Amino acid sequence: MNEPHVPHDWLALDPLPHIGFIGVGNMGLGMLTRWRALGGPAVVHDIDPVRTAQAQALGAVAVDSPAAVVGALPAGGLLVVCVVNADDCRDVLWGDQGAAPAMKSQQTVLLTPTLSPDDVCGFARQLGEQGVHLIDAPMSGGPVRAAKGTMSLMVAGPTRHAWWPVLQRLANPVFDLGDVVGDGAKTKLVNNLLAGIHLVAAAQVMTMAEKMALDPRRTLAVIEQSSGQSWIASERLHRVLNGDSATLAHMGLLAKDTALAVAAGRAVGYASEMGMSAQVAFAQALTQGLAQADDSAMWAFMRTLADEKDPAS
Amino acid sequence: MNEPHVPHDWLALDPLPHIGFIGVGNMGLGMLTRWRALGGPAVVHDIDPVRTAQAQALGAVAVDSPAAVVGALPAGGLLVVCVVNADDCRDVLWGDQGAAPAMKSQQTVLLTPTLSPDDVCGFARQLGEQGVHLIDAPMSGGPVRAAKGTMSLMVAGPTRHAWWPVLQRLANPVFDLGDVVGDGAKTKLVNNLLAGIHLVAAAQVMTMAEKMALDPRRTLAVIEQSSGQSWIASERLHRVLNGDSATLAHMGLLAKDTALAVAAGRAVGYASEMGMSAQVAFAQALTQGLAQADDSAMWAFMRTLADEKDPAS
Repeated sequence: MNEPHVPHDWLALDPLPHIGFIGVGNMGLGMLTRWRALGGPAVVHDIDPVRTAQAQALGAVAVDSPAAVVGALPAGGLLVVCVVNADDCRDVLWGDQGAAPAMKSQQTVLLTPTLSPDDVCGFARQLGEQGVHLIDAPMSGGPVRAAKGTMSLMVAGPTRHAWWPVLQRLANPVFDLGDVVGDGAKTKLVNNLLAGIHLVAAAQVMTMAEKMALDPRRTLAVIEQSSGQSWIASERLHRVLNGDSATLAHMGLLAKDTALAVAAGRAVGYASEMGMSAQVAFAQALTQGLAQADDSAMWAFMRTLADEKDPAS
Repeated sequence: MNEPHVPHDWLALDPLPHIGFIGVGNMGLGMLTRWRALGGPAVVHDIDPVRTAQAQALGAVAVDSPAAVVGALPAGGLLVVCVVNADDCRDVLWGDQGAAPAMKSQQTVLLTPTLSPDDVCGFARQLGEQGVHLIDAPMSGGPVRAAKGTMSLMVAGPTRHAWWPVLQRLANPVFDLGDVVGDGAKTKLVNNLLAGIHLVAAAQVMTMAEKMALDPRRTLAVIEQSSGQSWIASERLHRVLNGDSATLAHMGLLAKDTALAVAAGRAVGYASEMGMSAQVAFAQALTQGLAQADDSAMWAFMRTLADEKDPAS
């Protein structure tokens, strides 16, 4: 996951359209930061007054409800939904003062959370009934990259090309996954399941290395230059070895994503044993109160499990 | 696993010492190719006359037995054992016309196969009784890199530094894993277990992606630039997608290594669930006659398992 090549050629876009952001949490605020840095106009809503104030400090107009975001958005604007899960999406779209009833035909929702493909397709169908388009666009890369415009977006849906000039200003790389709404969600889940497996595997294998009295730094250095290399092991385990416990990605996120991915596999008649093993590991970590910990804590958690298995150690 | 930086500074070594190779199979012949390209003198033994002829064509002196390799090796030479498994090692060292009884005190054996740490320590002890040193030096990277001197060596043992000028001519990187014989074997197993887990996981997750009707090329392209990235998925799955079925690494090797790694973990009281799952997957692949297939066939094998689980597909 190298830094993508920037700057790159952008499609023409003048003037920059208004973007409405529903949700300016870690990722939403990152995207807003990027859009404002380019001079793009924005209107936002968030239930958290602290987040709202941060968005205002960036020059966004803050309003009271999802419906009010749509009200303040010109017909040619894009509505970005950047909340955590499917329940939140339902709430901001169709709940009390939800955005959907206020939207006009031919307007577009860009849906960025990691959701089950079924939920994404259901939202697209429901919006489609009133002529509103949905672009399935899960994001990846974390808040820092979102703010720099170097996060990635996995984009699917028949109207995606109309918004490409905006998407490529918000993210790099932007992956074009075709016309089928849901393929963004599926691809994101497949990727995140693999990341979850790799993280659990690295935590288990490093725990095994420690039980064997190997030096963890030396071991990781060999793995990184050998066939056992993975991006997430390098990223997470170095931070653990450096004593950096800052929470960059909550354990709860990969717990959610691995569960969603395994369920999505089951929905098409496929069970990945490794995936289920990762799902169990994350679920166990959550029962130990680690939902809000950085997911690199998986290594420490695996050590704890190992010591339980082997009380002599 | 980028190509290491070459050329690099070598420690002085003049003249190049004699190396005795017991075993000039894929990796041994690669190492011999490298040593001969540098002008180094070599004496070899292999049970396979084809391999023996290839070694002679490279300018090595071929002899009839492991004992004869030692007989032809000057006191200041290095004996490299490059066979497949622990039984082979026992056979070439202590079997009929084995090398060990012919060795002189203070001579050194460089042991390059991937073995259990217990076996490596046992061999070191047994050689030590006659004053012969063992360097624990499992290798990684495949025959092509071995022939270019860009394979990796994971080196442990108290006398390793005496042979460093030779090791750094045979491999790059050469990882210095310290004084403890067995730590090379342990590190190699830990790495290979992770590689085995990643390969099985990638095969399962790509199978899931196909069941979801995602395009495999697009999916892999996203994964490679996202948090699910791993070296082995990129290397193996691209070859599958390109229809390249050349056997570069036999399935039987990772089957052996994952089993050895899981056993080594168990020996120190640790069970990695992901590791056991990988071990089972490789063992199943072998029961389907895939021992001699390239290990990238794991993806096709996982598809087969998925279709068995779901006969409707």
